[in-house]
Amino acid sequence: MVKFPKQIVLDHGSGGKASQELIEGAFLPFFDNPLLRDMNDSAVFEIGGVKLAFSTDSYTVNPIIFPGGDIGCLAIHGTVNDLAMRGARPLYLSVGLILEEGMRGETLEKILTSMQRAAKEAGVCVITGDTKVVPKGQVDKIFINTSGIGVIEGDYHIAGQNAKPGDLVLINGTIGDHGMCILSQREGLGLETPLESDTAPLNGLVEAILKVCPDVHTMRDPTRGGVATTLNEIAKQSQVGIELWEDKLPFKESVLGAAELLGIDPLYLANEGKVLVIVPKEKAEDVLAVMQAHPYGKEAVVIGEVKPEPRGKVWMRTQLGSKRLIDMLTGEPLPRIC
Amino acid sequence: MVKFPKQIVLDHGSGGKASQELIEGAFLPFFDNPLLRDMNDSAVFEIGGVKLAFSTDSYTVNPIIFPGGDIGCLAIHGTVNDLAMRGARPLYLSVGLILEEGMRGETLEKILTSMQRAAKEAGVCVITGDTKVVPKGQVDKIFINTSGIGVIEGDYHIAGQNAKPGDLVLINGTIGDHGMCILSQREGLGLETPLESDTAPLNGLVEAILKVCPDVHTMRDPTRGGVATTLNEIAKQSQVGIELWEDKLPFKESVLGAAELLGIDPLYLANEGKVLVIVPKEKAEDVLAVMQAHPYGKEAVVIGEVKPEPRGKVWMRTQLGSKRLIDMLTGEPLPRIC
Repeated sequence: MVKFPKQIVLDHGSGGKASQELIEGAFLPFFDNPLLRDMNDSAVFEIGGVKLAFSTDSYTVNPIIFPGGDIGCLAIHGTVNDLAMRGARPLYLSVGLILEEGMRGETLEKILTSMQRAAKEAGVCVITGDTKVVPKGQVDKIFINTSGIGVIEGDYHIAGQNAKPGDLVLINGTIGDHGMCILSQREGLGLETPLESDTAPLNGLVEAILKVCPDVHTMRDPTRGGVATTLNEIAKQSQVGIELWEDKLPFKESVLGAAELLGIDPLYLANEGKVLVIVPKEKAEDVLAVMQAHPYGKEAVVIGEVKPEPRGKVWMRTQLGSKRLIDMLTGEPLPRIC
Repeated sequence: MVKFPKQIVLDHGSGGKASQELIEGAFLPFFDNPLLRDMNDSAVFEIGGVKLAFSTDSYTVNPIIFPGGDIGCLAIHGTVNDLAMRGARPLYLSVGLILEEGMRGETLEKILTSMQRAAKEAGVCVITGDTKVVPKGQVDKIFINTSGIGVIEGDYHIAGQNAKPGDLVLINGTIGDHGMCILSQREGLGLETPLESDTAPLNGLVEAILKVCPDVHTMRDPTRGGVATTLNEIAKQSQVGIELWEDKLPFKESVLGAAELLGIDPLYLANEGKVLVIVPKEKAEDVLAVMQAHPYGKEAVVIGEVKPEPRGKVWMRTQLGSKRLIDMLTGEPLPRIC
């Protein structure tokens, strides 16, 4: 049944519970098809015996330039990563720019330079584009859409639906860096060493992982909604429980400090260079080793385990040994985070 | 050499001369590759023996609902048409929504209903999407990006570069309808019968054309910048001259009337359901016949001829027998037309 909200609120774009309700209640019924209903980071289809992945994301991050990156490289990384999460080798990107009248040319040049560098590092080509300019005040500075096509060359079955009890959950480094970077910029925290976004292309890391473990069950980048929301999605899609080990969760001291200051749980903050990898237990050691050997995975750790029950739930085994339920994100702590 | 303007002005998004300067001076040097430099409505590439087309467009039209359509169906038609212009059968679309906080749910439902209907008519599936919500005032209502993938199943060589002297130029109906519709809405002309947009999916029409004439030389939909600008692009890419016959150009009386009232040349107004088809002279009659037999081509006519000289120029042979040069669009008569 189609169910539209009375009014669109920021929460509908948070990547959390309200986003999911909007997508499931309003969008899916309209465009219903198995590829869309699949609800993974990119859609996978076959044509003429070739298996391709296709993904899209719009970027509205504010500020447009931040420590560790900018809207340009973020837009390249985001779509590259969404393709990589299905085991695809990202090939081609489109870039759709919406610019505000009056934007300074040198700002645009800075952003394009960053996009170029990011595309080069990820080994993708921008092959088609579009530029719109709207009158001053009708868009805030610049919004970028990137869509991308990748090719899946192995016999992979990587999806949110495929996590299995007994699997281990790995992450390639510290949690919440991008979200806390943007938040600290916006709140003007004025930290001595500014927090840096972790924005990065993950296709190289994923390629290395798949080489030692082609039977990865699930990979997903915990962007909007953070690690907590992404794991909840997976728990629901796979109908499993996921246990996180508090003492293993990697955080930067500075991120934890800022999070405490602002009263925010970094498990709900967006990451833009992180991947949650869920693999059969017996493969975890090999996967961890190749992750740690990669520049974007040096601090990789095992952070939890997939359990048969309770289905669709995520919880934390705390350092004190108790269990705490970790729900999806509700409310929007931070619009325009990506 | 990279050459950025000091400031982005509306004209950079007009689809005319300034857009071209921005693309050629700033974007191409950054993302230089043969597929992008090709500069056609969609990029064409081959993978595993399969020939695919890939295209993207962002839609910012204002008002978002107008006589004959809305931003939703426009966004579907636009990308479907860009794929069809290379002879591709459009298969899959992505949809990226950027919504303004506070938007009414029923408005969004209206737009999605329209997208659904348009996708169904065009025979395409929306298989991946993204929704961002930005705080009130940071975007005007709704912007939509659609990107699309199509498959090229014939041995076609359709490109802006391929028009040949002696070819004839056809169009499938009246010129300037979409642009004048939007303009009259914005100017509040209060016409008795409102002008309607021509927004429509052209892939069915193109398929019919290719059946009788697989050696179409050029197809392009004259959107931003209108027929005048699109033909100038083709004349430059193919290094030919293009002569238009004034007495053959099809216009609605109402569009001509409004154009005169507003002092605007409808040859520069956007069309969203029109295609310029350039074919060998001996094929023109057959092509015209199938166009006229199609619901979206009933008023198809031959409007001009490709000449060897002067290269890169477009001119009109007027009803009085004189010749008038038709340049690309300069200046932006109408931001947010699509």
